[in-house]
Amino acid sequence: MALVTLIEYADASAEVRSVYDDIMKTRKVDWVNNFWKALAHDPVLLRRTWQQVKEVMAPGALDPLVKEMVYIAVSATNGCEYCTYSHTASARKQGMSDAMLMELMAVVGLANATNRLTNGLRVEVDERFRS
Amino acid sequence: MALVTLIEYADASAEVRSVYDDIMKTRKVDWVNNFWKALAHDPVLLRRTWQQVKEVMAPGALDPLVKEMVYIAVSATNGCEYCTYSHTASARKQGMSDAMLMELMAVVGLANATNRLTNGLRVEVDERFRS
Amino acid sequence: MALVTLIEYADASAEVRSVYDDIMKTRKVDWVNNFWKALAHDPVLLRRTWQQVKEVMAPGALDPLVKEMVYIAVSATNGCEYCTYSHTASARKQGMSDAMLMELMAVVGLANATNRLTNGLRVEVDERFRS
Amino acid sequence: MALVTLIEYADASAEVRSVYDDIMKTRKVDWVNNFWKALAHDPVLLRRTWQQVKEVMAPGALDPLVKEMVYIAVSATNGCEYCTYSHTASARKQGMSDAMLMELMAVVGLANATNRLTNGLRVEVDERFRS
Amino acid sequence: MALVTLIEYADASAEVRSVYDDIMKTRKVDWVNNFWKALAHDPVLLRRTWQQVKEVMAPGALDPLVKEMVYIAVSATNGCEYCTYSHTASARKQGMSDAMLMELMAVVGLANATNRLTNGLRVEVDERFRS
Amino acid sequence: MALVTLIEYADASAEVRSVYDDIMKTRKVDWVNNFWKALAHDPVLLRRTWQQVKEVMAPGALDPLVKEMVYIAVSATNGCEYCTYSHTASARKQGMSDAMLMELMAVVGLANATNRLTNGLRVEVDERFRS
Repeated sequence: MALVTLIEYADASAEVRSVYDDIMKTRKVDWVNNFWKALAHDPVLLRRTWQQVKEVMAPGALDPLVKEMVYIAVSATNGCEYCTYSHTASARKQGMSDAMLMELMAVVGLANATNRLTNGLRVEVDERFRS
Repeated sequence: MALVTLIEYADASAEVRSVYDDIMKTRKVDWVNNFWKALAHDPVLLRRTWQQVKEVMAPGALDPLVKEMVYIAVSATNGCEYCTYSHTASARKQGMSDAMLMELMAVVGLANATNRLTNGLRVEVDERFRS
Repeated sequence: MALVTLIEYADASAEVRSVYDDIMKTRKVDWVNNFWKALAHDPVLLRRTWQQVKEVMAPGALDPLVKEMVYIAVSATNGCEYCTYSHTASARKQGMSDAMLMELMAVVGLANATNRLTNGLRVEVDERFRS
Repeated sequence: MALVTLIEYADASAEVRSVYDDIMKTRKVDWVNNFWKALAHDPVLLRRTWQQVKEVMAPGALDPLVKEMVYIAVSATNGCEYCTYSHTASARKQGMSDAMLMELMAVVGLANATNRLTNGLRVEVDERFRS
Repeated sequence: MALVTLIEYADASAEVRSVYDDIMKTRKVDWVNNFWKALAHDPVLLRRTWQQVKEVMAPGALDPLVKEMVYIAVSATNGCEYCTYSHTASARKQGMSDAMLMELMAVVGLANATNRLTNGLRVEVDERFRS
Repeated sequence: MALVTLIEYADASAEVRSVYDDIMKTRKVDWVNNFWKALAHDPVLLRRTWQQVKEVMAPGALDPLVKEMVYIAVSATNGCEYCTYSHTASARKQGMSDAMLMELMAVVGLANATNRLTNGLRVEVDERFRS
């Protein structure tokens, strides 16, 4: 069990339901995933987080699928199980193939390795990079 | 000063120089950045790391610029100063604009936030995501 | 199964039992949670860790409930499942409501986001903050 | 130098200035710290982040000073230099003494230690904590 | 279920099988653990990762058991469940006792604590350490 | 400047001086590094932390030099600049060569990479590892 109960649609306030409705409408699905049902304990946090996800993940200077893959990269780095499942599902719906996922993981693994080689040896930033 | 001295081209062994030469040739530049000069204390580690960077960051199922931005996302999440400088420089050379960098940061910030909301509340993975 | 067996009271040495007894007496409960049963493989580590928890989490310049919430914030940031469960239980016993937990999570999420915006953009510390 | 230039008030657009004005008015100060000057490259991100900080850090179920200390705890855990400086300054303005800061650090250190003892030994969550 | 299916020997390509064979031969076992079966979706990544593990974990300036314990320390710090299980199993095969594991955890816990005390208080590096 | 002033021997209380004296005597040096001068703002935290370092880093089931290298591995993973400098200095005094440091870093880099490959693909722990 999660650390707070999940608030189902049937038990939700009108305020919470309006966010759930917007999630389903925006994503063209008929269900809401557990993350939002946990956040619903704080309707303001729920609304703000959903609003932020909707804005940040929308098409812009970057492609939505690229954004989903960046999300997966961060979640894998932080070891967030829920987030790797939910954003991999989302990326697949947007066209990420297994080959793309594997290549993404290769970059994530490499970056995590060289981050530590650099931090462990305290390599100084080249002046050319700073200017 | 870094925790190991940096090995300059003039002082490098033939083995190390051949890696430095390949770095400069591949990147079409006439200098080698500090990261490699620190790794050069272990020529096997130097060669393997460079080989891996060359292979993983090459065009494949993902675009090289997307890979650089994933690298930045991981480095920002881990707080690696050197890596954010070097990979931002590299991404800019490949066409990343300030608008793209800012949008990338917005995704990185959001993912780091929701990773903790999920981990802190121990939200259970929806069965639909697992199947 | 954990990576070491859990040492139950019945199987514990006198040294370990005296720590278990102190845990139960201090917390006014009749059981010991798994964390201590794992640490019991090293009675010195067990005693030192318990002593430290008792001292650090006691009332002082900060309120014990504030300390528990700080503990949850760190555990959510690090993604430690066990610690979020055990310290949320402890904080609730000391009066943390669901509203307080949700508000705590909002701060934790926000801090994790802005930590990366700052680290990713390498924002320089204002001189006013350093003096 | 940061990875993006800092946008000073004199060079800012009307949209950015209105956020800067609100920051100074809300905090009753006559300057804006570097974090916001970096975010200003993306006025939407700037406004959203400031709005979120204002809402999340306001008095609510938790005291604003408690929230600042939670922010410091997360920032110390993530190793964000900028954030530890800026939020320690903010907490001090709200009354945090050196004794409170040291006690906060003692909790942060302890939590980071036991998080790893638990994760490293893979201690199973007690059933009593889950129910 | 993992985010990719596990590729069993019977279903593997000749390229993948040759890596599986080398893993079993090198480790003198008759099975391959799940990590490799997941990586097998990208035969190049599989081969490169295995090659790297074989080289890096071999006897050299450091003892193989010391290397396994360093691996456990990193995995506990990052909270990687799979890695703590697999590398603890490997370290035990090479002679790590429960007493050694507990002592290792004591160091890991302590380092994680003092890392945050130092980062949280922003202690400046002593000049003597830099020279 | 650190977030608290450093307390020099000349300005220290008798309680703090007795810890400084023990540090210098134990390490056979005539100076105290900055970490302890920052902790000295809380003499109880100072004494407890020093006592813990003395006990945990002493010879036991593991060799002191192995422990120092584990400390470096954790500090590199967490990106703690101070800790990498101080523990590398300490390890070198105990005989760590550049070759050993580079090999240590190769393990740290590899572990950080595979931790993410595993967490990102959510590879399930093999039953054989759990029993």
